[in-house]
Amino acid sequence: MSRTRQKLYEIIFEADTPTGKLFDVVLLFVILLSVALVMLESVPFIRQDYRTHLHILEWIITGIFTAEYFLRILIVRKPFQYIFSFYGIIDFLSVIPTYIGLFLVGSHSLVVIRILRMLRIFRILKLSRYTQAGRSLVRALWASREKISVFIFFVIVLVIVIGTVMYLIEGEANGFTSIPRGIYWAIVTLTTVGYGDISPQTSLGQFMASIVMIMGYAIIAVPTGIVTAEIINPSRRDNTQVCPQCLWHHHDDDAVYCKKCGAKINPPA
Amino acid sequence: MSRTRQKLYEIIFEADTPTGKLFDVVLLFVILLSVALVMLESVPFIRQDYRTHLHILEWIITGIFTAEYFLRILIVRKPFQYIFSFYGIIDFLSVIPTYIGLFLVGSHSLVVIRILRMLRIFRILKLSRYTQAGRSLVRALWASREKISVFIFFVIVLVIVIGTVMYLIEGEANGFTSIPRGIYWAIVTLTTVGYGDISPQTSLGQFMASIVMIMGYAIIAVPTGIVTAEIINPSRRDNTQVCPQCLWHHHDDDAVYCKKCGAKINPPA
Amino acid sequence: MSRTRQKLYEIIFEADTPTGKLFDVVLLFVILLSVALVMLESVPFIRQDYRTHLHILEWIITGIFTAEYFLRILIVRKPFQYIFSFYGIIDFLSVIPTYIGLFLVGSHSLVVIRILRMLRIFRILKLSRYTQAGRSLVRALWASREKISVFIFFVIVLVIVIGTVMYLIEGEANGFTSIPRGIYWAIVTLTTVGYGDISPQTSLGQFMASIVMIMGYAIIAVPTGIVTAEIINPSRRDNTQVCPQCLWHHHDDDAVYCKKCGAKINPPA
Amino acid sequence: MSRTRQKLYEIIFEADTPTGKLFDVVLLFVILLSVALVMLESVPFIRQDYRTHLHILEWIITGIFTAEYFLRILIVRKPFQYIFSFYGIIDFLSVIPTYIGLFLVGSHSLVVIRILRMLRIFRILKLSRYTQAGRSLVRALWASREKISVFIFFVIVLVIVIGTVMYLIEGEANGFTSIPRGIYWAIVTLTTVGYGDISPQTSLGQFMASIVMIMGYAIIAVPTGIVTAEIINPSRRDNTQVCPQCLWHHHDDDAVYCKKCGAKINPPA
Repeated sequence: MSRTRQKLYEIIFEADTPTGKLFDVVLLFVILLSVALVMLESVPFIRQDYRTHLHILEWIITGIFTAEYFLRILIVRKPFQYIFSFYGIIDFLSVIPTYIGLFLVGSHSLVVIRILRMLRIFRILKLSRYTQAGRSLVRALWASREKISVFIFFVIVLVIVIGTVMYLIEGEANGFTSIPRGIYWAIVTLTTVGYGDISPQTSLGQFMASIVMIMGYAIIAVPTGIVTAEIINPSRRDNTQVCPQCLWHHHDDDAVYCKKCGAKINPPA
Repeated sequence: MSRTRQKLYEIIFEADTPTGKLFDVVLLFVILLSVALVMLESVPFIRQDYRTHLHILEWIITGIFTAEYFLRILIVRKPFQYIFSFYGIIDFLSVIPTYIGLFLVGSHSLVVIRILRMLRIFRILKLSRYTQAGRSLVRALWASREKISVFIFFVIVLVIVIGTVMYLIEGEANGFTSIPRGIYWAIVTLTTVGYGDISPQTSLGQFMASIVMIMGYAIIAVPTGIVTAEIINPSRRDNTQVCPQCLWHHHDDDAVYCKKCGAKINPPA
Repeated sequence: MSRTRQKLYEIIFEADTPTGKLFDVVLLFVILLSVALVMLESVPFIRQDYRTHLHILEWIITGIFTAEYFLRILIVRKPFQYIFSFYGIIDFLSVIPTYIGLFLVGSHSLVVIRILRMLRIFRILKLSRYTQAGRSLVRALWASREKISVFIFFVIVLVIVIGTVMYLIEGEANGFTSIPRGIYWAIVTLTTVGYGDISPQTSLGQFMASIVMIMGYAIIAVPTGIVTAEIINPSRRDNTQVCPQCLWHHHDDDAVYCKKCGAKINPPA
Repeated sequence: MSRTRQKLYEIIFEADTPTGKLFDVVLLFVILLSVALVMLESVPFIRQDYRTHLHILEWIITGIFTAEYFLRILIVRKPFQYIFSFYGIIDFLSVIPTYIGLFLVGSHSLVVIRILRMLRIFRILKLSRYTQAGRSLVRALWASREKISVFIFFVIVLVIVIGTVMYLIEGEANGFTSIPRGIYWAIVTLTTVGYGDISPQTSLGQFMASIVMIMGYAIIAVPTGIVTAEIINPSRRDNTQVCPQCLWHHHDDDAVYCKKCGAKINPPA
């Protein structure tokens, strides 16, 4: 029994064996199908014309996911730890909305929960070789979190000021019906999205908008600069060398001698 | 008396003690509430339905800010220096509009002044650890101010030329009613905002617009390049030192010894 | 005979001789004319007014391309290898739609195939000095393919979640008629394109959109950072060599000797 | 006489003396006023209400520029060289439209020519300290001209293909009335401008548009990467060192020893 369990564990939780890989590929396909189904269900004419087909497919997928969920609980060594882990909760939320839907027909908002099935893809990908690339991107973003926070805080203060000024200049007649709407316009403009649902009509408003847009030019360069710098020099932050002579500790990664006192420092391993 | 004053000074002006930190957090909350209030007041239906509630809250906040303002004047050693300092003026402008509003009912533009309360957040943040990240960003932007000025000047000349040409091509019938409006369109296009409130209708105009947009591709790269370079190599600029022993010449501005061979290099004059 | 063939080969396939260059320039001109023709043909009023002119020009160009195609088959040493090569197929697809059009009048979709003539430009450019610049760009994009894939996968997951949430918030009355349409809106917003054909109407929707746009600020920095890093340090990746004499470790992949101290370093296996 | 001429030369052509600087500042003011005048003249209601005022101001400015133009011819050593130089032609074009306007009343297009007065600003700025920053930007753009040309050529091929495909998918009913219009849409989308004057209406078209937009994410990173790399490492291109032993010639700027054969190479002066 224990050997079967071990084998099933390797198939379901790992991806080193051919059957383990096959299991992952099949699961990936079912997840993608399931997400596509949730999307298609929201399209009015598909929902009406293919109601039965969608219904049957949904129950097949829910069946597969339910079986997989119980299999995982049976096989894993510490079931409760799995059930309350991140992926355990995701797995639970992937199947429960369909069952609830039996009693609460028409509970429309449950689609959001079923779309969470998509997050199950990450578990499969975690095993693949693309993770390293992903990790280095996350690390770069994480390392620049302080600078990006400061930047976003500055942008928020800026759009509040711009939004208020534009609310006063343009007024309610030109679509700037309140300060929050003015702020919404300021964000749409500064991020260069530019829907055009609200746009300045007065000459003064258009002049102000022009300044905001040109300002946005310099501003959009900042997050790019932060992230690029972090990707290019990822390790400058994590350098923990301390000069044995003068105790200075901001050495570059390629430093062999302390640039402050000339003493030799230990190169990174 | 002097000791109480010293303690109050530590609470109000500094953030090293627990009570000092608590004071800052409470103040931050009141400021954010106050800014939210100004925003909500501008929304038509909220202004009508909750007039009394907003009024009462506004007076409570003004009361807190007024008390805080006088406390600061009393506690600080040089009251006049505080009153005419940047934050002293902000503090004054944070409370005065509400009092003026007693006599000049309906003075709508005063909302702008009250939104300045937001700037008081910066005083609190100045004490936090996020400031270093902010300072390095400001330094990078400040160090690239000349290049960015030149760039923005070039962009202004470019949009004036493009705006004039488009005004002639499209004419008043297609929304390009004047050269300034043409320039406004050129800015909206070159910054990739693209509201669509004015867009070229003639074939020649759309061809010109296509060239402007593709040109904008190369142009938007310039400020990003400037700021990124400044963030990556903040101090490399203008450093012309060469190590007399190993001839390496990418020394940081603060280097005294060559980090490659340990030889002493001549510091900049 | 063999010498004439060799000379024709040099003219048609190479660009080292003056006649070879002339041939390429003429061919480039004919290709550009041909592509312009396909475009003009699609403009309704030109198609009606200049039907005969376009027809004659089209047949002249097809004649030139057909002659060139057979010449290439005759001259090349391994005709079949050429016929089934990438450019051989492109050359074939460049002429065949016009002949098919003789029998199937009005087969509108054939214009797509004729636009492929444009790809023939690449063969001519392959011989020019601009190729090196192109190759280094392609290499930079290719080297960052893993990171960009991970990034695009992350963006896709993000827009699916955002699109679903917005579909629920805004609903079908405000243009978010289905989840796919919500996802379309999310992509339009996150990439800062911002058509404005669908835009949030409710306050909550505009608030969500604001968060998405500011998030887009940090997100757009990521691909820029990846590509920039790759262009700046094209070969630094994965190189773990350390000079045995001076311990410097930023060697290029093709380095055999340390460029800092001249000691021999071990080439990668 | 010669000394007066020398002094006038210093005042008009140079900016080292106080009077020379004053002359430049006054001229800059007149130029900006003149450009503002041309812009204001294009605004319908200003043109009607202030016709006389604009007329008088225009003649005063033309008078100043005419006087300056003849003064320059008189003072300069080689008058003909000045007249046919870039700035000589600009100076001539700055005054002639007003005189022509005496005979050809209503010649509207002449405004374009008068806007060229703006280019005279560059002559004044050439003498200022901002030029160095400008030059380094121009150098960075110039050094990356090959890569940017290849990039723009690639973008043009891409938008032609995308535009043709979208013309076939969406058709004339949805605003894609011809291939050139499809290409215009593709440029508007790929550059993230997004006017929204033409936007895909069919599901397939919106799906295609989504792919184009996400593709645009990676594409917009390329010019930024090129220019950033050039600003960060401006001198890597101009390295002309050749290894005296193995004749390899792609050395980095910081190379002291040839990384191919280990021979010492001459460091840049």
